[in-house]
Amino acid sequence: MVRWQPGTNERLQAAALELFASQGYEQTTAAEIAQSVGLTERTFFRHFSDKREALFHGQELLVDAFLAGVAAAPDDAAPMELVGAALESAAQFFPGERRDHSRLRQSVIDQNPALQERERHKMSVLATTLRDALRTRGVTEPAATLAAESAATVFGVSFTQWIAPGETRSIVEIERGVLAELRGLTAVAPAPAARG
Amino acid sequence: MVRWQPGTNERLQAAALELFASQGYEQTTAAEIAQSVGLTERTFFRHFSDKREALFHGQELLVDAFLAGVAAAPDDAAPMELVGAALESAAQFFPGERRDHSRLRQSVIDQNPALQERERHKMSVLATTLRDALRTRGVTEPAATLAAESAATVFGVSFTQWIAPGETRSIVEIERGVLAELRGLTAVAPAPAARG
Repeated sequence: MVRWQPGTNERLQAAALELFASQGYEQTTAAEIAQSVGLTERTFFRHFSDKREALFHGQELLVDAFLAGVAAAPDDAAPMELVGAALESAAQFFPGERRDHSRLRQSVIDQNPALQERERHKMSVLATTLRDALRTRGVTEPAATLAAESAATVFGVSFTQWIAPGETRSIVEIERGVLAELRGLTAVAPAPAARG
Repeated sequence: MVRWQPGTNERLQAAALELFASQGYEQTTAAEIAQSVGLTERTFFRHFSDKREALFHGQELLVDAFLAGVAAAPDDAAPMELVGAALESAAQFFPGERRDHSRLRQSVIDQNPALQERERHKMSVLATTLRDALRTRGVTEPAATLAAESAATVFGVSFTQWIAPGETRSIVEIERGVLAELRGLTAVAPAPAARG
C-alpha cells in the first residue's frame, strides 16, 4: 500500500498548471488534475488541501530563502543591506529555465481574483516574516516594517519585469536595478544617518 | 415611499461596527444590524452588498484623497514629493476625533481573516490607483510602482502607529516621521540622481 512516491507533488503541480492554463482555473477540478497523471482525487487531497494550493505549494521555501539571506549577512549589515541579501538569496528560486513556467503560472493568477488574493496573502506573509527576522536582528520599528515591505515591493516589481515578454536578464540583475532605483528615488540629499 | 434618508449609510455603518465589536463579526447578521437602528434587512442591502461592506464603505473617498494630493502638487514635484503630498492629503480622513472609531474598526478586522483579506485588497487598490496617477504625471517605471507602494507602506505603518494605545500625535505628524525614516533607510550616500 505504498501509494506515495517522490515526485507526486511535482507531477500534480505541473498537471494543475497545465490544465488551469489550457481550460481555465474555474473549469478544472482536483479530480481532473489527478486523473491527468493517472492518480485519484483522493491522492490529490493527500497532497493539497484544494486545487488552489497546487499553484502555491512551496511558498514557504521562497520565504525561507529570503530568511537565509538575512541570516547569512554580516552582523553589522544595515537594514537595506539585509534586504539586498534577502533578495539575492531568493533569486535562486528563479533560474532562467523556470521563466516560462513562472510566466504561465502568472497568466493563470492574473485571470482569477481568488488567486490574486492568494498571491497578495503570500506577499503579506513574506513581508511579515521578513519584518520579524529583521526585528530579531535588532532592527527597530518602523525601520523593520519599512525595510521588509520594501523587500517585498522590490521583489514583486522585479518578478513582474523578469517574466515580461522578451526579458532576458536574470532576476538578480533586475532586483539590483530596482533596489538601486528605490534608493535613488527615496534618497534625500546628504543622508549621514542612513547607516544603521 | 421615501425610505432612503441622508445618514442611513452612516447609521448602518456605526451599528455594524458596534455589533461586530461587541458580539463578533461572524455572529452578526445584516438583519441584526438593520434592526438595531430600526431598519429592515432589505434596506440594509440597498446600501451595502453584504455586511463586510458596511466596514469598508467609503474607501474610494480615501483613495480620492490620495489622488487629490497628487493632483495638487507642483508640476515639477519628484515622485517622493508626490507621495508626501498624497499622504498629507489623505490625513484629512483621520482627525483626532476619529481615532477611537479607527481603533475599534481595526480590532474587528484583526480578529477575522476574511476582513484582513479585504483590507489587503483595499491597500492593493490604493497602491495600483496611485501608481496609475503617477504614470499619468509622467513618472516612469519602476519608479511609479515603487513610489506608490512606498506610499501605501508609509500610510499603513503610520495608521498602525496612530491607533496604538496612548499615541497622541496626529497622523500627518506620524506620516512625516515614517516617510523621513524610509528616506533615511534607503538613502545611499551621495545621490545626485534622486530628483526626478
